Amino acid sequence: MTGRSPSTSSDDRARPDVAVVGAGPIGLAVAWRCAARGLRVVVHDPASGSGASAVAAGMLSPVAEAYFGERQLTALLLASAALWPTFAAELTEATGAELGYRTDGTLMVGLTGDDLAEARRLWAYQQELGLPVTPLRPTELRDHEPALAPRVRGGALAPTDHQVDPRLLVPALRTAARRAGAVLVPQPVRHLSEVDARVTVVAAGCGAAALTGLPVRPVKGQILRLRAPGGVAPGFRHVIRGYADGEPVYLVPRADGEVVLGATVEERSDTTVTAGAVQRLLRAGVDLLPELAEYDLVEAVAGLRPGTPDNAPILGPLPGRPDVLAATGHHRHGIVLTPVTADLIAGLVTTGVPDPLLAPFRPDRFDSDAPASVGAAGSGAPAGADRPDSTMEEDRWS
Amino acid sequence: MTGRSPSTSSDDRARPDVAVVGAGPIGLAVAWRCAARGLRVVVHDPASGSGASAVAAGMLSPVAEAYFGERQLTALLLASAALWPTFAAELTEATGAELGYRTDGTLMVGLTGDDLAEARRLWAYQQELGLPVTPLRPTELRDHEPALAPRVRGGALAPTDHQVDPRLLVPALRTAARRAGAVLVPQPVRHLSEVDARVTVVAAGCGAAALTGLPVRPVKGQILRLRAPGGVAPGFRHVIRGYADGEPVYLVPRADGEVVLGATVEERSDTTVTAGAVQRLLRAGVDLLPELAEYDLVEAVAGLRPGTPDNAPILGPLPGRPDVLAATGHHRHGIVLTPVTADLIAGLVTTGVPDPLLAPFRPDRFDSDAPASVGAAGSGAPAGADRPDSTMEEDRWS
Repeated sequence: MTGRSPSTSSDDRARPDVAVVGAGPIGLAVAWRCAARGLRVVVHDPASGSGASAVAAGMLSPVAEAYFGERQLTALLLASAALWPTFAAELTEATGAELGYRTDGTLMVGLTGDDLAEARRLWAYQQELGLPVTPLRPTELRDHEPALAPRVRGGALAPTDHQVDPRLLVPALRTAARRAGAVLVPQPVRHLSEVDARVTVVAAGCGAAALTGLPVRPVKGQILRLRAPGGVAPGFRHVIRGYADGEPVYLVPRADGEVVLGATVEERSDTTVTAGAVQRLLRAGVDLLPELAEYDLVEAVAGLRPGTPDNAPILGPLPGRPDVLAATGHHRHGIVLTPVTADLIAGLVTTGVPDPLLAPFRPDRFDSDAPASVGAAGSGAPAGADRPDSTMEEDRWS
Repeated sequence: MTGRSPSTSSDDRARPDVAVVGAGPIGLAVAWRCAARGLRVVVHDPASGSGASAVAAGMLSPVAEAYFGERQLTALLLASAALWPTFAAELTEATGAELGYRTDGTLMVGLTGDDLAEARRLWAYQQELGLPVTPLRPTELRDHEPALAPRVRGGALAPTDHQVDPRLLVPALRTAARRAGAVLVPQPVRHLSEVDARVTVVAAGCGAAALTGLPVRPVKGQILRLRAPGGVAPGFRHVIRGYADGEPVYLVPRADGEVVLGATVEERSDTTVTAGAVQRLLRAGVDLLPELAEYDLVEAVAGLRPGTPDNAPILGPLPGRPDVLAATGHHRHGIVLTPVTADLIAGLVTTGVPDPLLAPFRPDRFDSDAPASVGAAGSGAPAGADRPDSTMEEDRWS
């Protein structure tokens, strides 16, 4: 199908326009956006929301997560973060659900002199990209968050980096997708041949590897959930990210008293919670924010992020399978990338024409004869602008 | 009742000889021992084994727990530990249950020079009491446990300090008590007047305070359970106790791979698990035994020990209530003190004559006009030997 209207011919009536494999935030948002455009959508997942999103912190941090060598990914993160306010408003309007969307901004900090030196290198890079990063003097840092440990050496503010609660987001997306007409089938898909639809969207996270052969691998993350004692809100309101004696760590405060403290990044595929990881996370968290020592530890859990060779998502048609679109490999960025992924994939399904933003994230970029990978292709230009239109043409399918 | 045989008169047929309030290890062992002597026993507890025993590590450590100023308590701990092998054998014989009883001994260690100095003061005291404590040279320490961190400065062996698994013990005691004829009633007792029996034994842990007015207070303990990866036994076989940068900590290895890592001692009555306590326990544990960092963290939990003003249990008739016997206040020693408590209380119920061992632990010791408390009364003599027989006489009831 290419840019076709919702099917109405009689022999097509039972066949969905779109089958989505995976009912995490990505799959559900794709389903919602497609169904809202009048397409018939079926979503397959035996356990919606049980993947990486159940563990994710929900930071919307394109600025704080702008790392060296990932310019095109950064451009996509920025594009998606820019969509978030409208996306959240529409989702709340469609469902009435509260999403825990907060715009208090992100404080980036360094505990020791070494940590601060490391952090400053990154902030300089982020400022070079023109991103809103404001270094703070120590007194300014305490003005922003008095609860920070006195020994925290320095920090910077990323005021546009926001947060959402993934455990509120996913149920809201389920409701929105259903209300728009999508059908959720709580069955697993073990092979793409089991799915019958004009277009299949594989949004199965780590499960995409077995279904498509794409180089998606599990990247284990251990994460803690604390709770402020006495049922009050945490004693800080910014997302706090930083280095504590070399340990990268983040703290995400929720209005209900929860604090998410994460996360390890491990090349492992188990989901056990280990003593050493919990100890390191707690130590780093308490060093940055001493009041955390008195917080309840309510959850320690591990999840598997869908990682890719260049840390960027895989978006678009499988090589040789124009009817199968990948929307996976979002690694640590699944929540922030949900709106842009949904819009790009829904647009592709509807029009058959890939948005230029998709170009750096094509599934075929890992083939040996394909153009260079995302990381290596970075030239400083906005994502999608550094490849000729002729390449775009090849992405069309019909 | 005084030294009476099991009741057989017709009007007494429905009335139990003994009502036990509390079906933790103490209450169940008392019930088992009383029922085995032919007494009619009813045990009241809405949630058997849900108190301190569910959290306890199960160390049987009269030597390692012989602290300054607690000589009479130490004598009782030693007496009970000496009963444990037979008690465990009888319990296994009566039920077929495995109890995780292990005789590998306890290693006491100090991480830093300061920790070792602190530990050595205690070992010297324990040796002064004639207890089996063998200081080890560093090479000997590694011979005993090669998994200890290289920076552990020194240690000593307490070969007679054993361990049992409280989570196996309590179900076994329930079975034994039932098989001996005791009836377990899963109902709470809110006031002693609700209980109808010739003798009531209050073995309600922290709940004893409300039932009896005795000065039993909750002492919070947070404890972790780790598990060796791969389903194998932990890489060490001794119970390891020690100080790690001033933090007292113990590690109890089980054959099934579990390691119990504990414990905080907090004057609090909540059962929340706090980030700071978990961090301190893990840090201390990993510092002593680095391989723990790779272990799964499977449980973090808090319990309430029944503490008393002098850290010793309260055993015997309430003042003015010869028909009500306390068997509570076991604080950190409930598991090791189970056999001796059961035998002493069952003996008292049957004969009406208190064993001299009970003397220092009388409930009336906290009354202002009663003899000095256990801690202060310590003279170095074995427990129970420092009070005149005339005092014993007063303990009889009829």
